[in-house]
Amino acid sequence: MPRRVTAIEEAARLFYKSLRLERLQTEVTLVEDALGRVLAVDVAAPEDLPALDRSAVDGYAVIARDTFGASPGNPVILRLASIDSRPDSHLRNGEAVYVDTGSPLPVGSDAVVMVEFTSKISPDTIEVYKAVAPHDDVSWRGEDVKMGEVALKEGTRLEPQDLGMLVALGISEVQVYKRPLVGILSTGSELAPPGQGKRRGEVTDVNSIVLSSMVRRYGGTPVPMGCIRDDFESIRSMIMDGLGRCDLMVVTGGTSEGQADLTVEAIDSLGKPGVVVHGVAVRPGRPTALASINGKPVINLSGYPVAAMIGFYLFGRPLLARMLRTSQDIDPCVRARVTRRIPAGPGLRSFVRVRVLRSGGAYLAEPVRSTGSGVISSMINANGFVVIPEHVEGVDENEEVDVVLFRPILEHTGSNDFPGYPADPDM
Amino acid sequence: MPRRVTAIEEAARLFYKSLRLERLQTEVTLVEDALGRVLAVDVAAPEDLPALDRSAVDGYAVIARDTFGASPGNPVILRLASIDSRPDSHLRNGEAVYVDTGSPLPVGSDAVVMVEFTSKISPDTIEVYKAVAPHDDVSWRGEDVKMGEVALKEGTRLEPQDLGMLVALGISEVQVYKRPLVGILSTGSELAPPGQGKRRGEVTDVNSIVLSSMVRRYGGTPVPMGCIRDDFESIRSMIMDGLGRCDLMVVTGGTSEGQADLTVEAIDSLGKPGVVVHGVAVRPGRPTALASINGKPVINLSGYPVAAMIGFYLFGRPLLARMLRTSQDIDPCVRARVTRRIPAGPGLRSFVRVRVLRSGGAYLAEPVRSTGSGVISSMINANGFVVIPEHVEGVDENEEVDVVLFRPILEHTGSNDFPGYPADPDM
Repeated sequence: MPRRVTAIEEAARLFYKSLRLERLQTEVTLVEDALGRVLAVDVAAPEDLPALDRSAVDGYAVIARDTFGASPGNPVILRLASIDSRPDSHLRNGEAVYVDTGSPLPVGSDAVVMVEFTSKISPDTIEVYKAVAPHDDVSWRGEDVKMGEVALKEGTRLEPQDLGMLVALGISEVQVYKRPLVGILSTGSELAPPGQGKRRGEVTDVNSIVLSSMVRRYGGTPVPMGCIRDDFESIRSMIMDGLGRCDLMVVTGGTSEGQADLTVEAIDSLGKPGVVVHGVAVRPGRPTALASINGKPVINLSGYPVAAMIGFYLFGRPLLARMLRTSQDIDPCVRARVTRRIPAGPGLRSFVRVRVLRSGGAYLAEPVRSTGSGVISSMINANGFVVIPEHVEGVDENEEVDVVLFRPILEHTGSNDFPGYPADPDM
Repeated sequence: MPRRVTAIEEAARLFYKSLRLERLQTEVTLVEDALGRVLAVDVAAPEDLPALDRSAVDGYAVIARDTFGASPGNPVILRLASIDSRPDSHLRNGEAVYVDTGSPLPVGSDAVVMVEFTSKISPDTIEVYKAVAPHDDVSWRGEDVKMGEVALKEGTRLEPQDLGMLVALGISEVQVYKRPLVGILSTGSELAPPGQGKRRGEVTDVNSIVLSSMVRRYGGTPVPMGCIRDDFESIRSMIMDGLGRCDLMVVTGGTSEGQADLTVEAIDSLGKPGVVVHGVAVRPGRPTALASINGKPVINLSGYPVAAMIGFYLFGRPLLARMLRTSQDIDPCVRARVTRRIPAGPGLRSFVRVRVLRSGGAYLAEPVRSTGSGVISSMINANGFVVIPEHVEGVDENEEVDVVLFRPILEHTGSNDFPGYPADPDM
């Protein structure tokens, strides 16, 4: 266990500075399979969108100057014209044509009067009660995106509406970054792989599945490499193997041995500059080590599941976003009142698991009892964490804090009736 | 377009009350494939976790009463014992054994002294400077979860740490709910399916891919049913077909025809009670209709992509969570200052697209220009929306509002350097 610790931001800075990230390879995917993938190129519009002038409302397409002076007391009368697709078919002065929202504007018209401001006084005549200016209530050709304009930028993580834009532009395939390959290796002579019997004293390796799932969620492809006992040469050769085929190696365990820092030493021996940070000012997760092996990243996390999760959250997740050249998602966060004092030692930033409940219009945060970072149930009973800064010795009962949420909020009342509306902010 | 509108919460209440949701079928999946799936059964622990008493720190396992009275000025001296796995091998009075964090506690010991409070004075002797009580720094057998206790509840959406818990309990397969099947049908004679040439006046159907992606994101399986022209009988028979094989039908378009409410009428004709809400007090999305056909849900959304997204967000997403018997995720949200006045008509709750930027320590929200709910670029240039209540006529420049985020926040400075840390709250 390292005695010296580096502040989180400084650790990240040193780590990034030491890396030489190669640009990820790209691949072409169908738009329908592209949700959550990251664009590897700017996408320019091959045509104007909309491709035509369209009505923005339900109403009558008109020539604006025909409506000048119209008012409820002094309506303008227009003839209903029939317009079809022949090239010489166009709206003439004194004419109007009914258009639904989204309909193409008939040739010759330059504005739309909303149906609310008109009245049909005979099968082929309407009264107009409001003057409109040219362009009123029209979606102009190219208004959404102009031909040649960049509609979606490289580095965009594709959301449902982005796929809609691609389809609207007539694009059916896009070039995206390949998901970064993340090797996941658990070290520790006490570990048994999942699904196998354990001998007395053995512990099932849970970090592999937890970190694989986090990698998947944050846009990478996990490459599970199993468990390995605490042996310098074995650890060394497994990591070397992983570095050969992955973009990032995440190794758990071996960071807090009382006797030796076997894993850290094995990593450090693999290349330059080696381990650049060993010991981070965070609880849990203090023994985290960050390394660059000839420019490739290796993250060595605590073997204790909660500490490994916090460490990956702090250093793995932003690194994946960086590799994918995209921005990291924002975590949901609420202000909540702490139900009892949370002590925190000074010098480390503490991530304290809490259970947030809704109680009336407010939120309460109950610290989740846990004796150690190995207690995985603390991450299951909790739905968020409070971050307590380095220079603060704890949070008092009833103090208000920001809670980062990683699960839905529970109703204190037990009612689970239709939760989750973006409510009236005044409520 | 309906003249009468129902408030969002009331619309949801009427809709839900009209439904008879059948419990989804279940299926068995490997734990490694279960990320994001929803548990269909309570999972009880088949054994204690941890299965043994373990040290919670690096230190020496001792018999607590041997340390009574120990202090820096008056250390207690203990012999280092060697303990192995033979049944009669156990710690005796006056002995200590080194243990790493997580190591099983040797038989006979009942507490651990942290290594910091000891000193090795000879190869087989330590001094202890601190008295410990029984149970100090020990993770007791069953402390995390006791045998038979429910470790994970039915309705839990499985997060990385939940998969860790399952693996820790020796569980390799779990029973989860099948993803609800959601039929997606676009109506409108002006629509052209994606990837095909358009004729003049035709518009590419973007709702199908946008809604399919939202369904996937919220835990369902989309069943795309294509586009169909505005024809009562065709719409009717397609929806009937969809209801036969899906758990939910989402139909876009036909809600705001100036001339007729073809789709709404077609849905209403299919069974009892039929359409229970037509017209919701929301902008965009006002023409939304909600129906129950013999207890099965049908949601009819505006054909305009932004309005369809808001409508699905309000009514489809919570319904999927309800079908899956799970809680809905919380959206990330920030307080931001509006850069210019946002007008809003009274009577409807407005969802206004904004672009949130970080500027110094604060957030700014710029309203995104858009002339209509058909302008999909407004959902691409925006990263969040402001919800303006029904009784408010707008938000003033510089007013602070809550913004629900659907994309990462951009840095005003142009710097994109290592964003996203859960920062020191005092910064």
